[in-house]
Amino acid sequence: MRISELSRRTGVPVPTIKYYVREGLLPSGELTSPNQANYSETHERRLRLIRALLDVGGLKVAAIAEVLGAVDDPARPVHKVLGAVADRLGTAHSDDDDAESAAASAVVAELIARRGWRTHESNPAAGDLTRALAAMWRVGHGAFVELLDDYADAAELVARADLDYVGRRVAVDELVESVVIGTVLGEAVFNAMRRLVHVDASARLFGRDTAAETESKVAD
Amino acid sequence: MRISELSRRTGVPVPTIKYYVREGLLPSGELTSPNQANYSETHERRLRLIRALLDVGGLKVAAIAEVLGAVDDPARPVHKVLGAVADRLGTAHSDDDDAESAAASAVVAELIARRGWRTHESNPAAGDLTRALAAMWRVGHGAFVELLDDYADAAELVARADLDYVGRRVAVDELVESVVIGTVLGEAVFNAMRRLVHVDASARLFGRDTAAETESKVAD
Repeated sequence: MRISELSRRTGVPVPTIKYYVREGLLPSGELTSPNQANYSETHERRLRLIRALLDVGGLKVAAIAEVLGAVDDPARPVHKVLGAVADRLGTAHSDDDDAESAAASAVVAELIARRGWRTHESNPAAGDLTRALAAMWRVGHGAFVELLDDYADAAELVARADLDYVGRRVAVDELVESVVIGTVLGEAVFNAMRRLVHVDASARLFGRDTAAETESKVAD
Repeated sequence: MRISELSRRTGVPVPTIKYYVREGLLPSGELTSPNQANYSETHERRLRLIRALLDVGGLKVAAIAEVLGAVDDPARPVHKVLGAVADRLGTAHSDDDDAESAAASAVVAELIARRGWRTHESNPAAGDLTRALAAMWRVGHGAFVELLDDYADAAELVARADLDYVGRRVAVDELVESVVIGTVLGEAVFNAMRRLVHVDASARLFGRDTAAETESKVAD
């Protein structure tokens, strides 16, 4: 199809498609004449993936280019590709070296050992977890660590469902693409659900109270 | 304490603190002379909260100003404050009116009814969930809806732990602040954990394969 048809099908403006090609997110179309390129269903699929990662996943163009670069590398074994994708989806931050970060780091190492999770030290998710817990400590919520095993149970439940889903993919490229989609969009799905359940719980707990009743009830 | 001491304690530069005061995120210090203001432990606590929402939660300054505005409104009943906070933590997007959005919207309405979640139509979390599912559909992963009840089980597990934790707060302002912290930082905690478990699962499934073995195994 021509670029105008690709644009019509996906709702992505032609100049934006050209920008993605220049940035290496989308392969060029096959040139059929000096001024015309032909795009395939593969381009359409990739373009939809880019838009999902941008719009719902909140990823930046540079991060998407790196993730898709890892996805498209045919020489790497699957586990290495998934590791590379995970590295690029994590937040790249240097750790603070204050007391809260040290305490959080110890808690995370202990959690990983307790749950028997196979991971490597440089996994950015471990760093993200450490940073989030250190931030909890700094705002006076160090007691939140008591919830970690409930969170871990829930994370294992979700990850098991994810793996079942991904395991049904047949081809390697589909499998890796599913992991990217599942990681980024699945996160958006879970976060939205958790907030929905919070609203439900808040309605049950506080819905019928007037301000004054709540004040006295909570202060009791 | 003086602003310089507040800066030393929190690691936030003085000009940044002044910027937060100008933007309404942080109340002004109490003026002790025309050129000098006094800051309290309350300011320190609020400043740490702002940094956590910015650095770990990834919220923008304008969103933080709105969330803290709802937190600080003494006239509202707790449930209304929590609702206002939830509204501001969600993504403000208009929904697309394509077939995928309509299908996703129906799935979300059915899920909310099936799980018995009390919520209102305008809850932005429902919109976020609809958008994430519509994006899944567009990239060919409509089958992901089969995982929704596993996700919902996990979300309820996490939300129950959150509520237990928040329920231990005594004062209303602490309670609301805990909800903000729990929603934003708890999300970062859960997302990092889910990714940790993914890496573990990937190591178990694919870790020992060479590229060639994986190709043949996955293609079988």
